[in-house]
Amino acid sequence: MALWLIGLGLHDASDVTLKGRAAVRRCKKVYAEFYTARLMGSSKDEIEATLGCDLTVLERAGVEDGGDALVAEAKTADVALVTAGDPLTATTHTDLVLRCRRAGVPVRIVHAPSIHTAAPGLLGLQHYRFGRTVTVARPSGGWFPTSPLEHLLANRERTLHTLVLLDIQAHLEYFMPAREGLELLLEMAKRLETDALGPDTPAGVVAQAGSLEPTLKTGTIAALMEADLGPPLHTLIIPGALHDVEAEAWASLAL
Amino acid sequence: MALWLIGLGLHDASDVTLKGRAAVRRCKKVYAEFYTARLMGSSKDEIEATLGCDLTVLERAGVEDGGDALVAEAKTADVALVTAGDPLTATTHTDLVLRCRRAGVPVRIVHAPSIHTAAPGLLGLQHYRFGRTVTVARPSGGWFPTSPLEHLLANRERTLHTLVLLDIQAHLEYFMPAREGLELLLEMAKRLETDALGPDTPAGVVAQAGSLEPTLKTGTIAALMEADLGPPLHTLIIPGALHDVEAEAWASLAL
Repeated sequence: MALWLIGLGLHDASDVTLKGRAAVRRCKKVYAEFYTARLMGSSKDEIEATLGCDLTVLERAGVEDGGDALVAEAKTADVALVTAGDPLTATTHTDLVLRCRRAGVPVRIVHAPSIHTAAPGLLGLQHYRFGRTVTVARPSGGWFPTSPLEHLLANRERTLHTLVLLDIQAHLEYFMPAREGLELLLEMAKRLETDALGPDTPAGVVAQAGSLEPTLKTGTIAALMEADLGPPLHTLIIPGALHDVEAEAWASLAL
Repeated sequence: MALWLIGLGLHDASDVTLKGRAAVRRCKKVYAEFYTARLMGSSKDEIEATLGCDLTVLERAGVEDGGDALVAEAKTADVALVTAGDPLTATTHTDLVLRCRRAGVPVRIVHAPSIHTAAPGLLGLQHYRFGRTVTVARPSGGWFPTSPLEHLLANRERTLHTLVLLDIQAHLEYFMPAREGLELLLEMAKRLETDALGPDTPAGVVAQAGSLEPTLKTGTIAALMEADLGPPLHTLIIPGALHDVEAEAWASLAL
């Protein structure tokens, strides 16, 4: 008896590991959570066909408020929750692990490919040369935080790259495109009254990560905002100083 | 025709994705590189059985100097190189991608679970609260860099966590245990004449990541150096400031 948190990976149903699929098949009930992220390359039906099970899709409340129901169910049977990406990159899943520990219910984690590791590598950048990751959220109401750019500039002062994740609100079918993310970074620069980031600043885009033909482009922010980057999901990287191999990789992906 | 770089993931043969296994099976020749990392939970025979193919294991020189042979072969047939972890976390594989681009040979990447994403999540820490990653290498001769600790302390001054990867020299059957990594951090502190890190500094260990029962422990450096953490691979995390959920997760894993 355990709660199994199983990652589905980056792009489509075939991004799950053999371990993940085997685990799903031993579970009595399989829930899915697709609001923190979603597989853009497969429908629910395709995921079910690949995994060989029926999925019960949970709404946000089903995990965050109703997590205790999942935990209670896992006391007497193997129960799975499948999610896009790696299962432990969202706080809400860590919270679920803690609920299990408090209740004495074993948790089993099955990892999967994640954008955190994939995006830097796809652009040819070294992981140990990244500072903290930031997320650009869709502004709502009067709320417009500038902290993502502040963190990014602090990274760059230390010559470090920044992975910039873009907002996903899957329940609203909203997946922030690179263009909007770049626009928001420019707006943050304006509000911070800094010229440390502007239309001429170099940036990189990873789109459709995990597919066999992802879109990988580098260029100025202005040029990337005009480029056709294909369907979501999009992710940005703002580079710090580029080392030799990094610089060659960067140039090889220039618009 | 393409060169396929396929990740095998963290721990054993079942950590490959369905996409990765399908890709291997369409390739005419499958090479493996196990010197930058290795699956500790499966033998070569087990990996071959799971993938359904024969593996030709390359020595370091086979990829770094002889990479051109791989690229040439991929001009006329689908050829795969399988590696532990995600395929693009090692510079040597990025270099191979660049050789392919120069030669006009398509490259296909199949991602896999990676310690970069798995370790923070397993200890319940948020990815966007990490500074740059460092690696502690086995000292050799008079060479003893203190830069890993300098980067770590710079992260911590900004309240950020640090992922500390430990040296792997698979061809020598050397996989640095957590105890040795912690000892080296203490030695760096001595050489830098700083008391910002010492035996009482909190640290976390992830061991056997990717297995269904990884060892997850938090405690002081001194306490972790005495603890039984099981077989390799081991990875360290030195925390910065812990947020609410992080603090509860950290406490739940205390020695």
